[in-house]
Parts: sequence; structure tokens; C-alpha cells
Amino acid sequence: MGVGRYLQIRSFTEELCAHLDPEDLVAQSMPDASPAKWHLAHTTWFFETFLLKSFVPDYEPLHPAYAYLFNSYYNAVGERHQRPLRGVLTRPRIGEIKAYRTAVNERMAALLDDAEHPEHSEIVRIAEIGLHHEQQHQELILSDLKHLFSLNVLAPAYRSPLVGESAPAPPLEWCRLPEGIYEIGHRGSGFAFDNEGPAHRVFLEPFALSNRLVTNAEYREFIQDGGYERAELWLDRGWSQVQKEGWRHPLYWRQASDGLTEFTLAGERELQDTEPVSHVSYLEADAFARWAGARLPTEFEWEVAAASAPLDGNFAERRRFHPAPAPTPAEAEAMQQLFGDVWEWTGSSYSPYPGYRTEAGALGEYNGKFMCDQIVLRGGSCATSHSHIRGTYRNFFYPADRWQFSGIRLGKGI
Amino acid sequence: MGVGRYLQIRSFTEELCAHLDPEDLVAQSMPDASPAKWHLAHTTWFFETFLLKSFVPDYEPLHPAYAYLFNSYYNAVGERHQRPLRGVLTRPRIGEIKAYRTAVNERMAALLDDAEHPEHSEIVRIAEIGLHHEQQHQELILSDLKHLFSLNVLAPAYRSPLVGESAPAPPLEWCRLPEGIYEIGHRGSGFAFDNEGPAHRVFLEPFALSNRLVTNAEYREFIQDGGYERAELWLDRGWSQVQKEGWRHPLYWRQASDGLTEFTLAGERELQDTEPVSHVSYLEADAFARWAGARLPTEFEWEVAAASAPLDGNFAERRRFHPAPAPTPAEAEAMQQLFGDVWEWTGSSYSPYPGYRTEAGALGEYNGKFMCDQIVLRGGSCATSHSHIRGTYRNFFYPADRWQFSGIRLGKGI
Amino acid sequence: MGVGRYLQIRSFTEELCAHLDPEDLVAQSMPDASPAKWHLAHTTWFFETFLLKSFVPDYEPLHPAYAYLFNSYYNAVGERHQRPLRGVLTRPRIGEIKAYRTAVNERMAALLDDAEHPEHSEIVRIAEIGLHHEQQHQELILSDLKHLFSLNVLAPAYRSPLVGESAPAPPLEWCRLPEGIYEIGHRGSGFAFDNEGPAHRVFLEPFALSNRLVTNAEYREFIQDGGYERAELWLDRGWSQVQKEGWRHPLYWRQASDGLTEFTLAGERELQDTEPVSHVSYLEADAFARWAGARLPTEFEWEVAAASAPLDGNFAERRRFHPAPAPTPAEAEAMQQLFGDVWEWTGSSYSPYPGYRTEAGALGEYNGKFMCDQIVLRGGSCATSHSHIRGTYRNFFYPADRWQFSGIRLGKGI
Amino acid sequence: MGVGRYLQIRSFTEELCAHLDPEDLVAQSMPDASPAKWHLAHTTWFFETFLLKSFVPDYEPLHPAYAYLFNSYYNAVGERHQRPLRGVLTRPRIGEIKAYRTAVNERMAALLDDAEHPEHSEIVRIAEIGLHHEQQHQELILSDLKHLFSLNVLAPAYRSPLVGESAPAPPLEWCRLPEGIYEIGHRGSGFAFDNEGPAHRVFLEPFALSNRLVTNAEYREFIQDGGYERAELWLDRGWSQVQKEGWRHPLYWRQASDGLTEFTLAGERELQDTEPVSHVSYLEADAFARWAGARLPTEFEWEVAAASAPLDGNFAERRRFHPAPAPTPAEAEAMQQLFGDVWEWTGSSYSPYPGYRTEAGALGEYNGKFMCDQIVLRGGSCATSHSHIRGTYRNFFYPADRWQFSGIRLGKGI
Repeated sequence: MGVGRYLQIRSFTEELCAHLDPEDLVAQSMPDASPAKWHLAHTTWFFETFLLKSFVPDYEPLHPAYAYLFNSYYNAVGERHQRPLRGVLTRPRIGEIKAYRTAVNERMAALLDDAEHPEHSEIVRIAEIGLHHEQQHQELILSDLKHLFSLNVLAPAYRSPLVGESAPAPPLEWCRLPEGIYEIGHRGSGFAFDNEGPAHRVFLEPFALSNRLVTNAEYREFIQDGGYERAELWLDRGWSQVQKEGWRHPLYWRQASDGLTEFTLAGERELQDTEPVSHVSYLEADAFARWAGARLPTEFEWEVAAASAPLDGNFAERRRFHPAPAPTPAEAEAMQQLFGDVWEWTGSSYSPYPGYRTEAGALGEYNGKFMCDQIVLRGGSCATSHSHIRGTYRNFFYPADRWQFSGIRLGKGI
Repeated sequence: MGVGRYLQIRSFTEELCAHLDPEDLVAQSMPDASPAKWHLAHTTWFFETFLLKSFVPDYEPLHPAYAYLFNSYYNAVGERHQRPLRGVLTRPRIGEIKAYRTAVNERMAALLDDAEHPEHSEIVRIAEIGLHHEQQHQELILSDLKHLFSLNVLAPAYRSPLVGESAPAPPLEWCRLPEGIYEIGHRGSGFAFDNEGPAHRVFLEPFALSNRLVTNAEYREFIQDGGYERAELWLDRGWSQVQKEGWRHPLYWRQASDGLTEFTLAGERELQDTEPVSHVSYLEADAFARWAGARLPTEFEWEVAAASAPLDGNFAERRRFHPAPAPTPAEAEAMQQLFGDVWEWTGSSYSPYPGYRTEAGALGEYNGKFMCDQIVLRGGSCATSHSHIRGTYRNFFYPADRWQFSGIRLGKGI
Repeated sequence: MGVGRYLQIRSFTEELCAHLDPEDLVAQSMPDASPAKWHLAHTTWFFETFLLKSFVPDYEPLHPAYAYLFNSYYNAVGERHQRPLRGVLTRPRIGEIKAYRTAVNERMAALLDDAEHPEHSEIVRIAEIGLHHEQQHQELILSDLKHLFSLNVLAPAYRSPLVGESAPAPPLEWCRLPEGIYEIGHRGSGFAFDNEGPAHRVFLEPFALSNRLVTNAEYREFIQDGGYERAELWLDRGWSQVQKEGWRHPLYWRQASDGLTEFTLAGERELQDTEPVSHVSYLEADAFARWAGARLPTEFEWEVAAASAPLDGNFAERRRFHPAPAPTPAEAEAMQQLFGDVWEWTGSSYSPYPGYRTEAGALGEYNGKFMCDQIVLRGGSCATSHSHIRGTYRNFFYPADRWQFSGIRLGKGI
Repeated sequence: MGVGRYLQIRSFTEELCAHLDPEDLVAQSMPDASPAKWHLAHTTWFFETFLLKSFVPDYEPLHPAYAYLFNSYYNAVGERHQRPLRGVLTRPRIGEIKAYRTAVNERMAALLDDAEHPEHSEIVRIAEIGLHHEQQHQELILSDLKHLFSLNVLAPAYRSPLVGESAPAPPLEWCRLPEGIYEIGHRGSGFAFDNEGPAHRVFLEPFALSNRLVTNAEYREFIQDGGYERAELWLDRGWSQVQKEGWRHPLYWRQASDGLTEFTLAGERELQDTEPVSHVSYLEADAFARWAGARLPTEFEWEVAAASAPLDGNFAERRRFHPAPAPTPAEAEAMQQLFGDVWEWTGSSYSPYPGYRTEAGALGEYNGKFMCDQIVLRGGSCATSHSHIRGTYRNFFYPADRWQFSGIRLGKGI
């Protein structure tokens, strides 16, 4: 890996925070979310902990307390600051965190440049993990800030106003795929997380996926048809959640006096019919699919369908940070929006693939220990970097989570 | 279905409660468990609601409030008494519940006998569901009573003392199965729940399962090796649970001054080395397997392995109500204890099979709506009736549940 | 004390439970309430622990586990069964508890009869505490059963139907008392709890109390005037409670299709206008008083007013177990209903009197340690025994408690 | 009131925050505490709401959302931002809040200067409340920041290091006061809160108070004598808290490897023996007093003792912000430290005085509605302004609260 790529990805994190005030960077809106400042520090801690401390002789950590403050969940690395209290960390100040980033970047650049280092290839391998880790936190910076701003009646805007997009959505069509044994999971030399492997075979009965994402207009129809009031459409867990939390629509929709609005990273604006519905939970995605006479795709079906699709879409590089309507496709049955826009809830629980092995050491805690109670999402979102995503990429969140850019594609057996 | 079979299964429920006092039958030990009296009434309500009310012209319910009191979770059938408050139902008295059972049995016998009824076959079909439902509650009566009694320092015994079994466990061996496309799920005319179908194909990589269940002695070794103190052995969710609940051993083990004891339905007694470990959660089963260098079998692997095994074992009909040591097998690699003794945690989340359809109407709430956050268990236990279980049977509980007779079989890829 | 009095009070406890089923006696409706069976045992444990074990040489406890099971809150006496789990104690069975009572009664009779015992007077003194303790639990048996039955849609009746009482309430008048130094607290040789002393002087500004209790009709007026919807009438803590719990009326009122009903120990019946309002919390009593342009009396004002009133009223001995309308008084300003009917919330926090000393030893935990966060109630209720109450008697419950027979008398400065 | 006094008090609030970073000002450490920025805004909202909006014709609020964002608990004034989420208010930015303060100050100066205003005297009266309100929040800024910083392992210091004070504490003596009728409460023309009146008479039995505050050394003795392990020393509520929260010492004491330290606004430093113990709850103060064979003074006893004491001490004007050892008194029995240093827990629940009337309108919510479950503290602390406190001043917090500068003086009957 070149130092250039390292610095480029690192600097994108800083770009995402550059126009914000120190106050915006320190606040934590809920235990699931973290302050942007914490993300800035934690991603740096990652390189310091797993590379500089391990591979630089006599490395002196920049500050002894940072190991405690910026460890997220690695038990093997030691004790840590309580997650729900990340918002009390007014110190170190943002300036100190930036200095931390700079100092670690300098040491990392030297380390990466040192092609003679006896463990150079291992260094490069772990640095690659670190960069993908950083990109995951770039996405969290965006979704955590959106959640934070959404709780403020002032409705602060993270970015400049979105230009309205009025193109109608192409009609919903079904793309069919035949039964067969398919290979699933990552194979080859490119980067992938451990949870994407090993590659293995699965048998799929014939199935079909919808050609595009479910739109706001379609989801509104579900609501108008009593979607949130009909127990029979919901998983038991979903129905309890609806009752307990009073859910009546996606997380960021609001009932204004003159119609529905949506809170976006560009502030609050009128709900756009043809944009993909976003910020729904798995429980809502599942209920919607049932209402629509369909189901969610399995993660295997999704991966098979995506295998032949070009890896492009509305990603973070566009700096739109909001899903966009599906373009009118060249041919009706072409799959649209598989990548970018919104993460797609699958019907698959997050489980290990046959033969799955975690990394040795502390990095083994990265993925495997979370394989319980979570659901796989696929395809990346408008807050995901293009250089971060793959067809085999497995994201995962809890069934009730909805502060990510998460939406719905329909599936069915045929 | 003959009336004889109906009455036989119904009377086994009563047999399970016959020697208990009214006080034992009314108490609820936790929200997950129900009073035995409630089980007696709810199973009767099931026949009244789904058969007598639907198929007997001008049927008058025995008591108008019972529809409210004894509905478990069927939203389509109406409002209901709160689950965590089932223990306040001192009325109707046990005598009234018995009269309810008798009255419904009489009407059911007449209905089943009426072969001329225009919907006879549908009646028989639903009655079959009702009997299997009753058998599920028979098992819950036993596990709920065990939990209730376990909280009482008097350690009441449900049954007479267990005769000690001192045979050594056969050595743990691996039974190998080849890769291939296998058919999974129920096919044919016998009874099965909707969640066992439809039959479909899965591809399995080559795998092996252990020839018998994990024993108490083996589980104790895990504990002595720091099993409950080593974060790296646990799922993140499991480690949190261990910290929060202070788990240090299976639910019913107790550290007495002179060694480990186990609370059983026959009261408290010395822990038996060669009996299968029981009343462990999925989280513990998973940690044990990781410690043992193995993993849990998937539900598909289990089903494939069980396909050729005889459906016999230590079931409720033996009235032992406690797991028993594995017999020494005729051949070392023969699979033991696949059925009976303890439910076996699989590594599979409880999800719909491809093409899964719920029943129409209220009975559609029986299984499908619980397909979230739960884990499949297979094989039945010492509290399961032999006539209730099948190789395709899918039981399901939450990862932290451990008041069922649940244990561990190991699996691995090969 | 004569054995006769001992046995008479003890047998009243049994009378209160005599017509109930074992099932009714074992259930616990909430952590604050206890099963009647537990009350039967705990009151017996009290005599065994504080008398038999202390004063009978070589006393052998009836059952070693009872010390653990039936200790309520005496840390000095040892570990104990968790309060919220008293409902799991299906064993010892009711028959065993009755045998426990009989056995302890026999030993107690012998001990009390032994006038030659070197500590005879101390024995009599503690036995007196034990009998008053028993009478407190008699009241709890009634209020706990009422709460239990109220949660059952079958609305079981504890007693035979109440005969309607239709006399109009006398008009509400104010009884005035002059300023001055008054003596408060118990003085003399009769029994009193430690919290009633020492007698001491307080200065009271001139004040007035209402001549009778607030009626259901008056409380309904408060509701109809928006009582539960107007924040300005409530303490902050009360308003939070109203929002959180959705309180809209006293605990046992119910909005039926054809008007208000009230759940009573005689089952559910039409709300009676002229009966005193009952089962209101301090928070509601305080809000009502504010709405009425008055306030609650302090406990000192109440005691001064009650000093000259005859100690009679609607007590447990009448076996009505429900408050009754105020009789028309001989003279308009005479105080009515000071004793019996319902406990009267005062505006006084439960605090020690100047010079207060707790008992030595475990009995010191009886009263003093609860002097935090609680409010004093005065006068006894329809579930209190006449032989139990005094003008100096201080009962105490938390501001939000409302499962006791608790009502309202108004006070004001003049 | 002169504009000068208005501006002087307002500017002290700004001085308290001047050397902090924006990050420090935005964070909320727990629901009970608020961000300093919120305090800066809320105190300004107070003047805008209760003066500018009411008395300035055609007044246009600076920002329509501020009424929602900075209302603390005034139901009569309208809806408001949720208290536990004050930490999400990254906007308005600190600069905007400062501009808000400036704008309101300008309008307030004009209003106060307008001696011809027909309601001038009412304006002055409410402005006086507003200034005392501001001073209360100045104290909260200090205690909330201390709590915030205490949760950060970096132990940030709010102020420069404290100069060690090594003078020995004077011996503890008892100052006696005779029985009698005393006048309690505020009388006269100076400012007082409504809860300090009306002045009224109380009778006190003879009593004594300790001549100085309890020191750290004395409190450590209590701990070493098993203070936190002996149930008999505690109120029931206190003992539960100790068990549940694991309390083992005052809030900011820490067990370091080489002895006890204390977190102060000057950072962490060695525990000082002769300083008054601070940051203890009422529950701890009560247990300490019981252990010492004494009790807490009632608020009346305290007020009587303080009536003849000079109103001086270690107040916020000294900018020490930490309690100081008692000076050696001129005469042994002279009362020391009645004012300043730490608030003194009394044994009195916070209740209305006889004849207490709340203000009319929204300001009536200032004090009266909190008269439930709270305990009175007296005398002010090192974070209280000298110009804010009086002998009749009644502060109040919940029994378990300990993030205020709260300590202990002993009392007893004689």
C-alpha cells in the first residue's frame, strides 16, 4: 500500500468534520452513536495500537491515557472508557486530537515507507484493515451526526441544500435467477474482512429480486394502508417495538402541518416520492415486504444477483450523503441501485460462513464476536465510500436499528 | 384422528400435574414461564377457540372471560391478560380449570367422532395441531415447574429420587458426513409444523458431529479452565450477559460446601459426571464449543446426521424427566442421544425456509412471527414426548434462555 | 398480657384467610404486596424469632429454613428470601404454615403463662409488639388481597356484597383550633411504637380541619374540572407520575360503559357518591387539596384535633372492609371519621421526633430505618383493628402508594 | 435595582466559563446536570421570558426556538426540550449564546433604567428573582463541570492548583441552645425566595450543634470503622443505595495505590485531612451522624444557631471553589463554617412553612412544586455567592444526591 492512499483515506475523515464546530464534534446522541471527535481519535488509536505499538521498536505512545479512552471494544487490549459516556470526553480537545492524528500519520507514513521492515507485508495487511476500519467510521460519523442533529429542534444542516430530483421512479420489475449451486464469499487477493470468507457453496432455489429499491411513495402507501397498526404484518418483536416506541414512520420522517417532511443531512425538507425509503429498521423492512406480498432477499440471493452488476452508484465520494432516485434503466429488468444509496436489509441473520476463522489476537474481535442477534445488510450506502465496498461485503446491525442509511429491496421465490 | 389419541394426550397433561398442590399450580416464577394451571387452561382454550367456536354451530363458550384470560399471543383472536401477570390468576380455581378441560373434552370427542361433519378433515387437521401444541405445553409445565421450585430454598422435588447412573460416558468421537446437496425439511403426509417446510435443498460442505452430547464432566473442565472468565471465548452478547448476570455455571448447578450439586426435578443432588450438561444457554454452548476447538452444528447438519438415526431416546414417556448418560454404543462412531435427553443448540438462527408460508388466519401466528433473534434447537429432550418429535422438528429459544432442558453437541468442518 | 388476648388476635389473622382457597393465599401481585400465606408465616416467625428463640432455653426452631424464608427486612437477623419473589413460595404449603402457627402458638402460650420466667415482663413487652405487628399484617392481608383480586378480570369478591348506603354526606365544615404549644406523641404506660415518642412540644399556628373526609362525589368533581390534566395543581413528582402511569382516577375506579364503578373487597360495584374517596396516593391527595383551595393537615394538627375525639369508627372489627359515608353529626362542627374508614394522608414527612431512640437490637429496625421519603398517615382505616390504633399512631407510606385504604381530610391555616 | 448590579452578576456567569473551551461547555454528564452553555442560555431565557416578554411592548424574541430549548421546567410557559438530552444541543453555538446574552442584557438594561415604566417596581422585583436565579445556576455550572470532569480519566482541572492548607482542625465542641419558641423564616424587605416564608413560630426542645463541619479525617474514621458495611448505621434507603451503587466513600474520593486522593476543581490531589468532607449524600450524612452518636440538625435548629452568626465564609467570591479547613476560633464554643464551604444537610424534609403561598403565574413553579422527597440544606458553599445567601435560605436536593458541595454538621438533643 502506498502512503498516498493511506493519507488520502485519512484526510477524508478530516474533510468530513472540517466545517463543523468543536461543539458538534463532542456530543453523543445515544449509546449506539459516538461523537465525531471520538471517531477521529479511535481510528487513529487503531493504527497506533495494531501497528505502531507492534512494529515500531521502542514506540512511545503519544499519551498513555489514549489507550483507555479510545479503545472501542477490544477486550484483549485492555480496559476502556464506558461507551455510553463518550460524550463526556470534552478533553482531549479537538486540537489535541488533530495533533494526535498528525503525529500518528507521520509515524505511519514512515512505517509504511519502510519496505525493508522484516514484517513489511504484515504491516501492509493490517494497515489495509485499518483503512477499511477508518472508512467504516467515516460512515458512522455521517450517520451519528445526522442522529445528533435530528434531535435538535433547530434542525441543523450538515451540508448545503439538496437539489430536488423529480424524475419518476422506473416501474418495479422482478429480476429472476435460476436455482443452482453458487459460490458465496470472498475469494482472491483483494482486501476483504474475515467475515466475508471463506468462499463456499450454497444451493439456492429459484428466486427473483426487485429491480430497484422501495421508494418513499411506496412506503407511504404501506403506512396509509395501516402498516403500523396491523399486527399481522409484523414479526412479534416488531409489533412489540411499534407499540413500545410508538413508531409510525421511518426514523426521520416528520408529520408537518402541511405534509410529510424528512430530516436529511441538508436539514429538513419535503419528502421526495421517488427517493428510496431510508432509515427503516429490519423490523419495518420485513413488515413492508410482507405487506407487499414479498419477502426480503437472503444475503446469498443478493450476492448472486450483485455478482454481475457494476460496482457503481451513489457513494460517499459524490458527497451527496442522501439516497437518490433510481435512474431509468436501459432495460426494464436491469438491476438498479444494488450499490450505494442505502444499505439493503436482507432476511439473513449474521452468522459465520462454514469454516470461518477469526484473526488471531485482538483483531479477532473485529467481526466474529458480533455474530449474534444481528442482521446482514448489503451494498453500501450514500455514506459508504466506493473504495470500501464489495459484492461480498457483509454489514450488520440489530433488527431495531434505524439510524443507518438502510432501506429495502424486495425478493421472492419463483 | 381417533378420540382415543386425543384423550390420551390430554390426560398426560393432567397426569403431570396430578400429584401437585393447588399452590404449586398457580405460581409464576418469571415472565417467560407460566403457571401450570395456566397451561392446563390455555391448551384447552386452544381447542375451544380454533375448533369448537369455529366448527360447532351455536357453540356457547364455557365462560366469556376465558377467551381473554387464556389467549397466549394471538393478536387476531383479541385482547388478552398480560403475560407477566399470569401468576395473579388465583381464579378460576384449579377445580374450575379441570371442569373446563372436561367440558371441552366432551365437546371435542363429539366433534371428532362426527365423521359426517362437512369439514371433518379440517377439524382433524387442526385437532392434530392442538395435540402437538398440548405436548409443547407438557414440556413447558415441566421446565416451568423446575424453574419455580429452583427458586425456593426448600428445593421441592417434583418426582421421586433419581437412581444414580454411574456408567462412564463413551469416548467422544467425530462422525463424518460428506459434502453434497441434501433435502431439508418435512415432506410427506405425517404431521409437521409449518416452520418445518417446505422441503428444500441445501448444499453442505463436509462436516463432522460428535457422537454424543457434552457431559457435565466436560463442561466442568471448561469452567475450571476459566471458561466464564475469558472474554475471548464468548460472543460479545455472551460476555455482556456473563458480566451482568454473574453467570458462573449452568442454571441449576450450585456450589455446595462439599462440591457441586445440581437441582433436578427430583430435588437437589450431587452433580453426575456422565450425564449430559443441561440448562445451558446458546451463549454458553457457543463459548464451550469455541473453547473445545469446535463449533455448534448448523440445524441442517444436525438434520442430515439425524436422518438415518432411529427416533428413540430418553423421552417424557419414561417419566425420568432428567437427561441420562449416553449408553456405550455398538460401534464407536454411531451417533448417540440425537433424540431425547436435552435439546441441542444449533448454530442456526431461526429463519423461514425458502417458500415458507404461514397458515391462514390466527393460527398463522403460531410460528412465523417468532422468526427473529431466536436460535434453533433440535432433537427433543427428556421432557418431550416421543410421539411429538421428528427429525425435522425445529424448536427455538432466545440465546440467553436456559430454563429449558438444553445442551450441547459439537460440530466442525472437515 | 393474657394468653387469651394473644390467641384472639392471632386467630383473627386466620379468620381473614379462612374462606379463601390455597391458590388465593400464595400469589403475590407486586413487589410491595405479599401473599397472604407469607403474612401468616411471617407474623409467626416474628414470635418465634424475637421471643421463643430468645427466651425459651434450648428452643429448636420448627424448620431451619423458615428463618430465611419469613424474615422480612431485619438485617441483624440474617439473610432472607428476596421480597419480589415471595410469590414463588408454593412450599411450605398452607397446611404446613397452619401447623407452624399452631406449634408456635402452643409454645407462646406456655411462655406467656410462665409468670415465673425471670424475664417475664420483657417477654410480655415484646409479645405486645408482636401482636401489634400481627395486626399491621392483618391490614396488609386485606389490602394485598384487594390488589391481587383487582388485577383479575373475573373481579373476585373477598366478602359478600356490600349493602348500599345512600345517606347524604353532611356538609363540609371547618373545625378551628387555636395557636399554641401542644404536646405531641405518646406518653404513659399503654402500648405505643417507638416512632410515637418521645412526647414533645410543638408550636402550631392557628388552623382548621374539615369536619369529615373528602367524598367520592367531591373527588369526581376534581376530575371533571381537569384535575388530572392541569400541571399547576400537582407537585412536580405527582405530575411526572400522572404522565408516566397514565393515572386518571383513584386506583380502583373504573370507567364502565354506563358510569363509574369501584372495585371493592365485595367485588365491583357502582361508585357511591357519599363514601369517602379511598386508594388515592399522597400525590393525588395533595393535588386535590390544592384544587380545593386548601392543603393537607400536618400530622401535628391532626393529632391535636384527634386528641379530644372518641376513638371509634368503621374498623376491621365491623368486617365491612370498606369505608362508609360520614354519619350526620350531632353538631355541624364536630369532627367525623377521624378514626377508621381510611388512613388520612398528612402533609408531614415521616421523621423522628426530637430525642427519638430506636429499640436496641434487631427490633430497632422496625420503624426508624424507614424514616426517609415517606409520608405520615393517621387515624386507621376500615381494615385496621380498633384495638390497634391510637391518636398518636403514625403510619407511613411512599407518596405514590395507593393500594392502602388511604383518603383525604382537608386542612388550612386561619 | 441598579443596572450595575444586574450586569455585575450576569458577567460573573460569563467569567466562570471564560477560560473553558466550547467543548467543555456543551457536554452533559448526567440527566441531573446541564451543560454550562445551557446554563448560560437558560438564565438569559429567564429574563427574556419573565421580564422582556411581559413588560416590553411588542417585544420580539431573539429566536423563536429558544423558548422551547431553554425552558427548564415551567409547564405554564409551554413545551420544552427533554432534560436528559440537553447535551445534544451543539447548536446554538456558544457564540450565538453569548450574543443572546448580550442582546438580552441590552434590553434588560433599558428596561431597568426606565424608572417611568408603570410597572417599574414589579420589574425590579422579578429582576431580583432573576439575579438570584442566575446565582443558583452559577453554582450549578461549577458543580456540573466538576461532575463532568470527574468522569474523564484525564482529570481536567477547572482552576489552578490549590495551595495546600495544613492547619489542624479545631477540636469538635458542642454549642448549646435552650428550648423555646423561635421565629423561623424570612421577614422584612430584603430579597428572599417564597419558600423562606412566611415567618412563623416553632418550638424547639433544647439542642446542641457541633462548632464546625465534619472533616475528611473524621469521615475516613467512619469508613475505617466499617461505615459502608454495617447495615445498622443506615436508613433502609441508604443501605439499598450502598448495595446497589457500590458506594464506599464520598463521590470524589479515589483509592490510589499510595493512599486516598480527591478530585477537585483543581484536579486530583491528595486527600486533605482537615478540610470539611464534601460531596456526601444525605444518606451518608445521616449514617455518619448515627455512627458518631449524634444526628443531623433540623433546619430550624440550624437557622436559630445561625441567626447570631456573621454571614461570612468561604464563598464563590474567593474563587477557591473548594471547602477550606475551619479556622481556629477565638473561643472554643464559637460556631464556625456556618456559611460557605459546604451546604449542610439537615434532618428536615423540604416542606412548606405554615401559610406558604407560591407566586402567582409561572414563577409559582419555581420552588413549591418540588416540596416532595427532598431534604433541606443550609448555609451555602464555596460555590455560592456571598450576595446570594441568607440565614433563612433553604436549598434542597434528593437524599442520594451528592454532586453538590454538601457536607455534615452534627446535632443532638440535650
